[in-house]
Amino acid sequence: MTDVEFTGDMPVKLVDSMGSDESVVAAARVSVIGPESQEYRHTDPEESKGLINFLMKNRHGTPFEHNAMTFFVQAPIAVFREFHRHRIGWSYNEESGRYKQLEPKFYLPPAHRPIQQTGKPGHYHFEEGSYGQLYTMNRAIRDVCRTAYDEYEDLLKQGVAKEVARGVLPVYIFSSMWATCNARSLMSFLSLRVKSDESLYPSFPMWEIEQVALQMEHHFYQQFPITYDCFIKHGRVAP
Amino acid sequence: MTDVEFTGDMPVKLVDSMGSDESVVAAARVSVIGPESQEYRHTDPEESKGLINFLMKNRHGTPFEHNAMTFFVQAPIAVFREFHRHRIGWSYNEESGRYKQLEPKFYLPPAHRPIQQTGKPGHYHFEEGSYGQLYTMNRAIRDVCRTAYDEYEDLLKQGVAKEVARGVLPVYIFSSMWATCNARSLMSFLSLRVKSDESLYPSFPMWEIEQVALQMEHHFYQQFPITYDCFIKHGRVAP
Amino acid sequence: MTDVEFTGDMPVKLVDSMGSDESVVAAARVSVIGPESQEYRHTDPEESKGLINFLMKNRHGTPFEHNAMTFFVQAPIAVFREFHRHRIGWSYNEESGRYKQLEPKFYLPPAHRPIQQTGKPGHYHFEEGSYGQLYTMNRAIRDVCRTAYDEYEDLLKQGVAKEVARGVLPVYIFSSMWATCNARSLMSFLSLRVKSDESLYPSFPMWEIEQVALQMEHHFYQQFPITYDCFIKHGRVAP
Amino acid sequence: MTDVEFTGDMPVKLVDSMGSDESVVAAARVSVIGPESQEYRHTDPEESKGLINFLMKNRHGTPFEHNAMTFFVQAPIAVFREFHRHRIGWSYNEESGRYKQLEPKFYLPPAHRPIQQTGKPGHYHFEEGSYGQLYTMNRAIRDVCRTAYDEYEDLLKQGVAKEVARGVLPVYIFSSMWATCNARSLMSFLSLRVKSDESLYPSFPMWEIEQVALQMEHHFYQQFPITYDCFIKHGRVAP
Repeated sequence: MTDVEFTGDMPVKLVDSMGSDESVVAAARVSVIGPESQEYRHTDPEESKGLINFLMKNRHGTPFEHNAMTFFVQAPIAVFREFHRHRIGWSYNEESGRYKQLEPKFYLPPAHRPIQQTGKPGHYHFEEGSYGQLYTMNRAIRDVCRTAYDEYEDLLKQGVAKEVARGVLPVYIFSSMWATCNARSLMSFLSLRVKSDESLYPSFPMWEIEQVALQMEHHFYQQFPITYDCFIKHGRVAP
Repeated sequence: MTDVEFTGDMPVKLVDSMGSDESVVAAARVSVIGPESQEYRHTDPEESKGLINFLMKNRHGTPFEHNAMTFFVQAPIAVFREFHRHRIGWSYNEESGRYKQLEPKFYLPPAHRPIQQTGKPGHYHFEEGSYGQLYTMNRAIRDVCRTAYDEYEDLLKQGVAKEVARGVLPVYIFSSMWATCNARSLMSFLSLRVKSDESLYPSFPMWEIEQVALQMEHHFYQQFPITYDCFIKHGRVAP
Repeated sequence: MTDVEFTGDMPVKLVDSMGSDESVVAAARVSVIGPESQEYRHTDPEESKGLINFLMKNRHGTPFEHNAMTFFVQAPIAVFREFHRHRIGWSYNEESGRYKQLEPKFYLPPAHRPIQQTGKPGHYHFEEGSYGQLYTMNRAIRDVCRTAYDEYEDLLKQGVAKEVARGVLPVYIFSSMWATCNARSLMSFLSLRVKSDESLYPSFPMWEIEQVALQMEHHFYQQFPITYDCFIKHGRVAP
Repeated sequence: MTDVEFTGDMPVKLVDSMGSDESVVAAARVSVIGPESQEYRHTDPEESKGLINFLMKNRHGTPFEHNAMTFFVQAPIAVFREFHRHRIGWSYNEESGRYKQLEPKFYLPPAHRPIQQTGKPGHYHFEEGSYGQLYTMNRAIRDVCRTAYDEYEDLLKQGVAKEVARGVLPVYIFSSMWATCNARSLMSFLSLRVKSDESLYPSFPMWEIEQVALQMEHHFYQQFPITYDCFIKHGRVAP
């Protein structure tokens, strides 16, 4: 029997990027100074902090689009399902259950993932699971995923097509993808997929996608520190 | 134990629609006759067949966007995963594994679904399964899905959050969604998700999404008969 | 010499539409009740007022996309330039200066259009023009547009291509277009193109595009009265 | 009187970029090899020429989206009007006639621009202008643009708002913008805005936008030489 791996890690790598706070400033200034705006790509953006703040506060979004970030993300299908609902300013290429045998690797919620839910849809609150709940959850996920993967491999061995055989695999199976966005589309994602007391519009993201989002947020902060500050300051509302 | 349903049916209902071949003609004519183009919404489009043909042949796409179709689609998650990769000109609302207990209903490939795959990625060919393959596939899917659903229900009973418990459910579990598109975005979908000898650019869609697409194609044909004819005539290339 | 028309009217006609508050409710409910959500297309949306309010308040945008409105808009190029910057959820077909001789019809700001501007970029305030300003503006626009149109016609007569000859035409020349959107993309447009004390994020739209937007807002209100109320109530922020 | 400049130059600068043929290969390979696809960002893409060719030929478009190019473009409004009709995968920030006094700089078609048009809409052919036509065109454009700019400045001096005064300015007035795209959206643009005998779907772009497009095509070729070759080889059809 194939060894099946279980993990709570959902690594996100920033693979490539273009642009910076300077590019935001330059793009915004073209409306008022035309071709001379090009020089602002080489000016200390600290001087333009007020402008970026103005753009964010008044929701002028387009200057935040002249940049790009390419990530490599590894997470279970249940997370990618939510991810792919972000259509605008996002590009995806994911591994395919039609073209490759999926790896025997499944997501297992780590012990600190709160798994008890209270409250109404749209306003759920989550609390830590009891020892019994954690135990049952662990056992159930491990059992079902192992059984499913065994059946999957068996079907493949019997010559059943990959795209058919994978029908038995649970949504906690891991996948991986390239995801490319810009600062504006990323802020839209972060505003919905990170829970924060600083949010003007409270979000209730699934814990797993939030772990992915937080890693992206860190890269965003490093590449666009002033833009990031303004995003936080104005309640995490995507401009 | 809950009764688990297995089905090969993936029903698509056209729930609402706007526009027609006339709207295509009117939208196209504005470029040459301005406000008078409005009258073409009340003119027999047969007279404008040549124009629609010209638009399709030369890939003038925008006149095919002033219309809409809203579908209600029921299919397994494995199908919706592919569906949601269509980002432009598509709107989706799907049932949520976070907010509702998913129904005990799973997809089971019908007997005529070819399940043996030959050829290279990107050019797969599929053939009918042997009796042994069909038998094993049926048993495997039924067993895994039933076991998984039992564990799912058990976790729910123990108070584990729906969004966590559903991690054990296979991608053949059914879901349902609203999907809204226009004739142009639908043609883009159909060009990729239906296999046809008439295609200028051959596609190798997954059998299941093709069953969904064919139902949409039928509705498309009924609402836009001339546009549809031209789409076929010019090799199923979305303008 | 050709008679040149000047007008301050920028008519907007709602030509076709699909969907209603019911369609918003049905699309939203699928997440919690699946296929039964279809019944909500036939239920009094007044009962679902709370749900629409919740969606708007918490910025759940997708349920507002399963509908469509097709407008026919007549306005000067200066207005269409701003209009076409709305990319997502908008479809356009406009008359073409390459394919038709543009009509001798120009925009002339009506007397009540405030034409004196004070304040800083992004926060302009406008006041009524003095008699002298209005007089000069009227004369200048009439003179330049007439002269330009004469030269345009003369170039056409001499066999210069339409697309070249139109280079002399001022941006106040009229054009016309088909524009199709959905309630979500329309709210995004209205939030930016209508100035209102009720706006959470103040906008400073150009007066002319606001006249166009207000007509669209009226149609929006008629087709989606509950959605519209919630849009206003929550500060005209597009969900 | 202000000196008015006339020019036939429409310069395009590539200001920033991300990605390469390697990024196309890596994005495509994820479907078959998952996380190991990351290594292909550091592999000679010559070895993957066959894969890029396959993607282009079969119109697999998404792998061409994980990259970006930011251009600074200077051209008349008549060109930007066409440019901005490209909605998907394009970001724009342009100078504003509301926020700045537009520069006294106008487009004047150079002597080699063919200005006589024959044939039907959608299939125009253009030929060189006669001496008389060129003379008249030059005079007309210079006269109208100078007069219009004088009136514009006069209105500004009298305190009329910039956004109102600019109504008299012809569509040949220069503007400038930041434009960001990816290889896929750029190919879609190039397929429509460059006339070529190699095109499977013939296009009849306006001469001016073609001059802009050709400069972008050159940058595209330099950044993605293999992708570019495949684009040409398969008839300039955007995948």
